[in-house]
Parts: sequence; structure tokens; C-alpha cells
Amino acid sequence: MQFTSEQRHDDGVLERDFTLGEIPGTLWTPESATPTPLILMAHNNGLPRKQPRLVARARYSAACGYAVATIDAPGCGDRPRSAADDQARADLRRAMQAGEPVDEIFESFVGPLVEKAVPEWRTALDALLSLPEIAGPVGYSGWTAVGIHLAAAEPRIAAAGFFAGGYVPRAQREEARQVTIPLLFLLQWDDEGNPRQRALDLFDAFGSKQKTLHANLGGHTGTPWFEKEDGDRFFGRHLK
Amino acid sequence: MQFTSEQRHDDGVLERDFTLGEIPGTLWTPESATPTPLILMAHNNGLPRKQPRLVARARYSAACGYAVATIDAPGCGDRPRSAADDQARADLRRAMQAGEPVDEIFESFVGPLVEKAVPEWRTALDALLSLPEIAGPVGYSGWTAVGIHLAAAEPRIAAAGFFAGGYVPRAQREEARQVTIPLLFLLQWDDEGNPRQRALDLFDAFGSKQKTLHANLGGHTGTPWFEKEDGDRFFGRHLK
Repeated sequence: MQFTSEQRHDDGVLERDFTLGEIPGTLWTPESATPTPLILMAHNNGLPRKQPRLVARARYSAACGYAVATIDAPGCGDRPRSAADDQARADLRRAMQAGEPVDEIFESFVGPLVEKAVPEWRTALDALLSLPEIAGPVGYSGWTAVGIHLAAAEPRIAAAGFFAGGYVPRAQREEARQVTIPLLFLLQWDDEGNPRQRALDLFDAFGSKQKTLHANLGGHTGTPWFEKEDGDRFFGRHLK
Repeated sequence: MQFTSEQRHDDGVLERDFTLGEIPGTLWTPESATPTPLILMAHNNGLPRKQPRLVARARYSAACGYAVATIDAPGCGDRPRSAADDQARADLRRAMQAGEPVDEIFESFVGPLVEKAVPEWRTALDALLSLPEIAGPVGYSGWTAVGIHLAAAEPRIAAAGFFAGGYVPRAQREEARQVTIPLLFLLQWDDEGNPRQRALDLFDAFGSKQKTLHANLGGHTGTPWFEKEDGDRFFGRHLK
């Protein structure tokens, strides 16, 4: 793990970009002398890790006392892109906006992306937990499909917050019952890209004994800010 | 409004029983020199206001800085009971436990109870807001059907937290779209007495632009304690 840049913010949070082989990532750590719990933050459908809304969330959690790490998924953010991926992503966006069924694109494009992303998250987890300033336990926040596949495979994930989840590849829908850690499942009631009933069915399918659903009125990007606070309270119950 | 008993608890909360004509009630107020916001706490299906779980919730909110008031609904708690009411309540409980449809009992028994209860809550609200230690704004917490009917009629209610809501009389299901204040709608995912889909449909029906759904795994009485904290944070956003 090579740190490639470093910036100290006004609130004391240290933001460092890193590379781990081919994988670019960012780590935010609080101004704290003691090792902190870690939250892995993955972004739905491979949004670039430097998307401002997502960076704001990461910095908020770091200011609350967590180490927060994110990496770009294969073909996303700062990583080499292929024309085929760009085409698939454009097709997916167009179909979602048109309200057309997207299951086929999800299976052929997002499914393999999830399969490729999870081993990289596990590699990143190994490297992050070897840093002296990070102690665990480890939470996961964000991209539902990656979180399901990761939590099903990775016993070090102690709690997870998932967002949206209306469209999830079939393999992860089936894996949901194997996820048994405490969950906070957040959805937007009128999410134009995530059918509500599918998201509710996925919440129902998780094997966890402790699972909480939060839903708010509005579309995909309309999540109210207090859900960020609620998310940190959730992690506070399970990671601190 | 006549206070009939007074008890100061260790946490500074003052608990006073009162009568308002024929209506018995209890008021909890925090140890505070400044007038406080008020939460009206009504209990699903007319549970006695001294039910220990409900008293614990009221005292928690009072310790957080709210005045909390509750009254017994007609025929409930300390009020004169009729054999017909007792029979209807027993029928309702038996039918719910057996998983039989209860709409008819709801229309004939709970519907009129809601109609009788709401004017009493408005009378209580007048009396409570005339006390120097209570300033408003006013929130409502608990029994969904009474809360809908009250919020639709009473502009002084600024925010409401509703619980369960799988069975609600038809008149209140239809009134839900007239409720436009910020809402926190709490349900238990496996509530044996409150069909999940009906509760979700009711959440969908409210006219409020700001509405949040919280659902947790488990049966009717299994709500996790952190929802109490979340409820007070909700009221904190809207009443403080």
C-alpha cells in the first residue's frame, strides 16, 4: 500500500490517496491517537470514489471517529476504462431513465463487476488492517450488491449499511440469506432506478436477526442528511 | 385541570397525574426552568396509560427535555368500562391472535373509540398549553388512528411519530392524505397484529412531504430501544 498524496482538513481529518497494486483508493482518518474502527465505503454501481456527495459522507464519518476507506471498482473512477464498459454503463443509464427492465444488463455487466470488485476489497481490507492507526472492528457502507457478496465471504465485516438495492444481480439476491450481520437498509421511497417492492423483498431476504429498514420520501439522490447521522449511530452501536 | 398526585424522580422528571373533567391523565415534565415543547403520547388501541413500557418511553422523553402528556381513552385505563367494550376488546384480541380478519371489529369498535378520543385530546391540549411550563411546539407519538384524526383536525400538531398502523379504521386510512406534517412511521416487520403490506400502504398514503419509515425485524412488542432515541431525534429536528 503506497500513499500518493496527503491532505489535513480543518476538522482534523487526514485524507490520503493510495494505490494497492493497480487499485486506487482513498483513506480518511480522524485526528486520534488511538486505533479506530474502520468503515469500507463502496459506491453504488461503481461511481468514482471522488464523487463530491460521497466524499462528504466519508469525511463526516471520519470526523465522527472512524477510519473510512474507499477504492475505485475495476473500470471505474481513476482506473482504465474500456469502450465496452462505457457502452454498457450508458445502456444501463438510458434503460433506467426510460423505466425499461434492466435485469439483463445487470446480469451481464454489474454481476461480473461485483465478482471482480470483492477480492479487491478483501485485499484492501488486509492492507488497511495492517496500518497501526486502524484497529477494527470493520463496517461496510454503500453499494448493496458488493456488500452482500463481501459480507457473505468475509467474516471480518461486523455490520453493514446498504443503500437502494432495488436492482441487484440474481447471485447476490440469492446470497442475501447468507448475510447474518446487523444491517441498516436505506432506501428512497420513490427511487426512479430502484423498484420499491424489489428493495423490500431484498430486505426481507437477509438472514440477519438484527435488521432495520429506513425509507424516506423522494428520489435516488434525495436521501436526507439525518440518515448520515443515523448511519453513524448504527455503526456506533456495532463497531465502537 | 386538577393535579391529583405528584412524584419527583431521580432524573429530575416530575410526574403528575391529573383529571380534566372525566378524563384522567399523566404529565411528565423535565427539570427545566424554561418552557418546553410538548409531546402527546397516545397508546395503540387504548392501552392503559400506566402500562410500564409506555411509562418508560414517556419518562425517557421527559428526561430528554420534553413535556409528555397522556390520557386514558374512553372505556380504557382508569375510566369506567362497559361489558360491551370489554367483550369487543376480547373479540378483537382473540381474532388478531388467531390471524382472522378484524376489519369489522375495527369499524364497529375502534372507529367510534377514535372519534370519541380526539376531542378529548384537543381539550387536553388546550389545558396543557395553558400551563406556564409548557410552550409548544407540539408533537404526537403513538396510536396511529388517533394521530391521523387529530393531526388532520388540529393545526397545533407540528410533527408526529406513528407506531404499527397495519389495522386502522377506514375513515382514518382515507384521512391519511390530509396529514401533511413531518412523520416518522415505525413498524415491526413481523408484527403479528398488523399486516405489513397494509402498514406500507398507509405510509405511502400520507400527504406529508417529509416522511420517514423505520422497520425492524420482530413482533409487535419487539421494537428495539434505539428507536426511542431515533424518535426523540426526530422530535428534536421538528420541535426544538
